[in-house]
Amino acid sequence: MRVLGIDPGLTRCGVGVVDGSVGRPLTMVDVGVIRTSADLPIAQRLVSIEKGLDAWIEEHQPDAVAVERVFARSDSSTIMGTAQASGIALVVAARRGLPIAMHTPSEVKAAVSGNGRADKAQVGAMVVRILRLAEMPKPADAADALALAITHVWRGSANTRLEEAVARAKAQQRKAPVRTR
Amino acid sequence: MRVLGIDPGLTRCGVGVVDGSVGRPLTMVDVGVIRTSADLPIAQRLVSIEKGLDAWIEEHQPDAVAVERVFARSDSSTIMGTAQASGIALVVAARRGLPIAMHTPSEVKAAVSGNGRADKAQVGAMVVRILRLAEMPKPADAADALALAITHVWRGSANTRLEEAVARAKAQQRKAPVRTR
Repeated sequence: MRVLGIDPGLTRCGVGVVDGSVGRPLTMVDVGVIRTSADLPIAQRLVSIEKGLDAWIEEHQPDAVAVERVFARSDSSTIMGTAQASGIALVVAARRGLPIAMHTPSEVKAAVSGNGRADKAQVGAMVVRILRLAEMPKPADAADALALAITHVWRGSANTRLEEAVARAKAQQRKAPVRTR
Repeated sequence: MRVLGIDPGLTRCGVGVVDGSVGRPLTMVDVGVIRTSADLPIAQRLVSIEKGLDAWIEEHQPDAVAVERVFARSDSSTIMGTAQASGIALVVAARRGLPIAMHTPSEVKAAVSGNGRADKAQVGAMVVRILRLAEMPKPADAADALALAITHVWRGSANTRLEEAVARAKAQQRKAPVRTR
């Protein structure tokens, strides 16, 4: 399967494409960063990110998209922009009907390094080793996007099956008649 | 001028359209709420909001869009969804080249009620009075969207001129040669 990993951000949105399947070596297809200028209005920056992500999906035709899950407790000065960029990433993928998974930073760290509290350098080093790269992808956002894609190949399908089962159970519950006795 | 006010939210996204200009009575054109089900994946909900907002713009052809500015310090359980929905609102408007302004909740409260700390009931009551409505628009998200549109008519154009001046000044600065002495 081919996965596009997206590390959302307003100034730097990391993108990385990985080919592979569980138990087989993974390959990096492409990696990069979509940058937008802080001088532009936020709306324009979000449109640039939308266009950039659309172009990445168009070029690489991924089977699934993995987006980093953002939390309110993160650094508050940039968190709103990150959340907005992640919303754009989700919409761009969902509009095309692509399966989407969200992974938390600690899930990604645990998946690639075995340690949910690994630092950026450790994650980057593991990405280099897993994908057998000649050098560390830069900036860190690009390496993080690859780490997300790797995480998704390794645990994404199990996740998706789980979510589908939960959705089915919820739907069943709604359909079931209410019994008062 | 016709303004579409958007109070972003994942469960309820308030939308309100107001016609008017400074110093003349304002008219409500339409008001409503775009709802999405909490049972759906976030990406699907954001796509529904995108489609809903596109349909509102298509139908009412506003001259400008006013979106509530969200802050990280707001209620953290829903803030990520609100931020993502606001990102979608900005992109939908920017893609069509519509002028966009963001107003903070306290700016809106101050504009419609004269008090930046007014509560929801006070804001709703002022919206009813300003637009000469027969009843309070419900839910509160719908009234908030109208309040945003009113705020924009009353202070939006001044804001836009200010932002344009700042942008021009920044551009000038970048073009100016660096003088070291």
